[in-house]
Amino acid sequence: MNRKMICYMVGYIVKLEAVLLVLPLIVSLCYHEMNGVFSFSVTILAAALVGFIVTGVFNPKNRVIYAREGFVIVTAAWIVLSLIGCMPFIISGEIPNFFDAFFETVSGFTTTGASILTDVEGMSKGLLFWRSFTHWLGGMGVLVLIMAILPSENGRGIHILRAEMAGPVVGKIVPKIRDTAKILYVIYFGLTILMIGFLLAGGMPLYDSAVHALGTAGTGGFGIRSDSIAGYSPYLQWVITVFMILFGVNFNLYYLVLLRKFKPVITNRELWVYLGIMVASAGIITYSIYPLYNNFSDSVRHSFFQVASIVSTTGFSSADFNLWPDLAKGVLFILMFLGGCAGSTAGGLKISRVILLIKSIHKDIRHLLHPRSVEAVKMEGKTVDNTTLHSVTTYFALYIVLIAVTFLILCFEPNFDLQSNLTASISCCNNVGPGFGMVGPMEGYAAYSNFSKLILTVAMLFGRLEIYPVLLALYPRTWRKNK
Amino acid sequence: MNRKMICYMVGYIVKLEAVLLVLPLIVSLCYHEMNGVFSFSVTILAAALVGFIVTGVFNPKNRVIYAREGFVIVTAAWIVLSLIGCMPFIISGEIPNFFDAFFETVSGFTTTGASILTDVEGMSKGLLFWRSFTHWLGGMGVLVLIMAILPSENGRGIHILRAEMAGPVVGKIVPKIRDTAKILYVIYFGLTILMIGFLLAGGMPLYDSAVHALGTAGTGGFGIRSDSIAGYSPYLQWVITVFMILFGVNFNLYYLVLLRKFKPVITNRELWVYLGIMVASAGIITYSIYPLYNNFSDSVRHSFFQVASIVSTTGFSSADFNLWPDLAKGVLFILMFLGGCAGSTAGGLKISRVILLIKSIHKDIRHLLHPRSVEAVKMEGKTVDNTTLHSVTTYFALYIVLIAVTFLILCFEPNFDLQSNLTASISCCNNVGPGFGMVGPMEGYAAYSNFSKLILTVAMLFGRLEIYPVLLALYPRTWRKNK
Repeated sequence: MNRKMICYMVGYIVKLEAVLLVLPLIVSLCYHEMNGVFSFSVTILAAALVGFIVTGVFNPKNRVIYAREGFVIVTAAWIVLSLIGCMPFIISGEIPNFFDAFFETVSGFTTTGASILTDVEGMSKGLLFWRSFTHWLGGMGVLVLIMAILPSENGRGIHILRAEMAGPVVGKIVPKIRDTAKILYVIYFGLTILMIGFLLAGGMPLYDSAVHALGTAGTGGFGIRSDSIAGYSPYLQWVITVFMILFGVNFNLYYLVLLRKFKPVITNRELWVYLGIMVASAGIITYSIYPLYNNFSDSVRHSFFQVASIVSTTGFSSADFNLWPDLAKGVLFILMFLGGCAGSTAGGLKISRVILLIKSIHKDIRHLLHPRSVEAVKMEGKTVDNTTLHSVTTYFALYIVLIAVTFLILCFEPNFDLQSNLTASISCCNNVGPGFGMVGPMEGYAAYSNFSKLILTVAMLFGRLEIYPVLLALYPRTWRKNK
Repeated sequence: MNRKMICYMVGYIVKLEAVLLVLPLIVSLCYHEMNGVFSFSVTILAAALVGFIVTGVFNPKNRVIYAREGFVIVTAAWIVLSLIGCMPFIISGEIPNFFDAFFETVSGFTTTGASILTDVEGMSKGLLFWRSFTHWLGGMGVLVLIMAILPSENGRGIHILRAEMAGPVVGKIVPKIRDTAKILYVIYFGLTILMIGFLLAGGMPLYDSAVHALGTAGTGGFGIRSDSIAGYSPYLQWVITVFMILFGVNFNLYYLVLLRKFKPVITNRELWVYLGIMVASAGIITYSIYPLYNNFSDSVRHSFFQVASIVSTTGFSSADFNLWPDLAKGVLFILMFLGGCAGSTAGGLKISRVILLIKSIHKDIRHLLHPRSVEAVKMEGKTVDNTTLHSVTTYFALYIVLIAVTFLILCFEPNFDLQSNLTASISCCNNVGPGFGMVGPMEGYAAYSNFSKLILTVAMLFGRLEIYPVLLALYPRTWRKNK
């Protein structure tokens, strides 16, 4: 275990966060929010100080890291990032309780979008900007950002990339990891700017556009109004719907499009299943909510908005789906588990895993019929070996266990009902955001106790990092000295 | 595909059912229920006629069957058994609707215990006896019963035993399948008689004792009162609790006890996890419901009763747990998924599968830390190979898919809420019986539409036969001619 290297990397990330916090500081300055300026300045100074001390003290000669160091770095980095990231909320007094502020920040970085705020309109602009900016940073991954900046050394980055990026098989787009990270961030940045343009064109103010674009790009879901997106025009709701769908797509496909390689994009199985699920679900929901709105275009728009929001695990809402018929709620409930495509900023199980699960089941059925036959499972034209297949089914079991354990602990909360606790667990583990009942899209997580908030905070981290990194960081064997 | 042999076996089962129906006929005679006598007589004659014709027409020379014939025989047999088994309900007019009667009979054979009856006290004694007798027959398996009776031929039985008996690894206790089946039924019969004795000792009338023992032995859950077991004395409730636990234990362990081989029983991992889960859950529930009863012994009794009932997938209730606090309901909700031990009459996922899932997760974590290490997974002292491990994780995925699909279809039902539909799906897929909300222990499934009842009926069959047999019977490739 290269502990020095872990500390060094975490210190480096803290320095980076100090730099990134300058952006919300500028926003606070623009809006003359002196309380915000003060809070961000103090946090930046503290982060810079800690960062320089840590990277100074732990400057390892041996920079080699293995998979397990990768897992620990990512887990530690995310926790430290959130601890520092919640400081402005506490210092400014806008979220005075530590557990609330930590919940909100982790919810931001993990792109969950679950909020403990009861009066979001009362928050200052600078802090709301930072809140949504954490979505953007967490969406593609903070360590991926570092790799795009840092000169890559002896290929250690792949372990970090694998640990931080979501999906069953994360590949490099181009041979060099640094270039892969750069390409991903360039596409990410470009799409975000494009979205801001579309929102501005619809008459949304610049600040609102920027904040919503950051929240959509990271598939986060923090809004700046207590009714989320419900108060915006149908055009703006459609723009957000389309971009929620776009940010749930594997970013490799955008790179292929840029290279004008259209064939692998058109034949991409995951993409079509992802779109197919959305169209089918939106169809059922339109049928279910039509009597409520009595208007076809409203029903279609709200259906697509909510489906795109839940599948991409963003969590914005254009309507209070808590009040929808149980058929619509049932479909959304199932969708909460799925998540977007691998290699996107979306959370959840990921569509490619769902496909591999179905293929794994199919393979077992064929095996029962013809015990001696050996048929390979293929995905996107490549053969999937048994180890990968097995790790996907095992991951699914682990994922259900995570939801079950989170749910069971939440049940100790006295005033919450089963539906609220269950959907809160699913929503947080999948980084969606809203649930049903008392954690519905127009409600929030404020009513939970500090203990339950901490549990949900941990669940969000587990979900965003796809369980294993956090679990390994907690596993005693990980910390053993190298033999 | 040896279709002749499939027909022959199903015909044979129909003849057996004609014989078994004599027992409820006698009960009807004893209670002078002429309507019942008539209904059973007609059914017996019809079954005997069909049975003799089918076995006469299809008397195959080639009696060799493979795994896939085993699956099809079991699936077909269970459907035909239920179709004939529901005739007395329809003919007598006590359950006039076919979908209701079929639901009730499949719920009986699959040992689910979910009921569409709204006035169980108004039913005749003979029909209620038959209803509970289906639990007993379905619990250990009707084809296992045939194997205990029929002279075994060229070892074909193992495919049927594997398809009908539950759990990830079904072994033969003794080398000969026929002897295994006999031993299982002797233990089963003995325990049932023992239970009747204990119930009689507590002052329960003979008829009630017999019916409840049949329902407990099969881990079914059909009662003869609308408040299930709530109206009986604490002693009787404890007796039923203990026997629900006993019938959820792997029957191989009882055989080992009879042989005075105590060591493998005491070191049986599944047994201890099964008991541990029950004690822990009952502890939490006691804590949760204590303020409701304000009496320690009542709280403990109701906790253990409901926990034993849900874990063993019996479904009796001594209290309306629908009215319990959400912590207690949350624990019961998670327990609904688990089920009893493999090789018992209980349904659900089975504790041994849960253990193997956890071990599989553990193995993957170790593999991530030390990619080159190879550590074998062990269970009950034996090494579990990767194929078995993989099939357990894949089965789990399939099982969750089954619940999700059942739930989604139920959502089209207009007047049911999410919680009721979700727990109805889980409860039927796991052969538990009651759920929460509108399908709570003091409610029933009567309010569902015919279509939803049929869906739940199919779900119960899938659950009881552990999905694959039914799925394979529906799979086109199964029916291809042998090459």
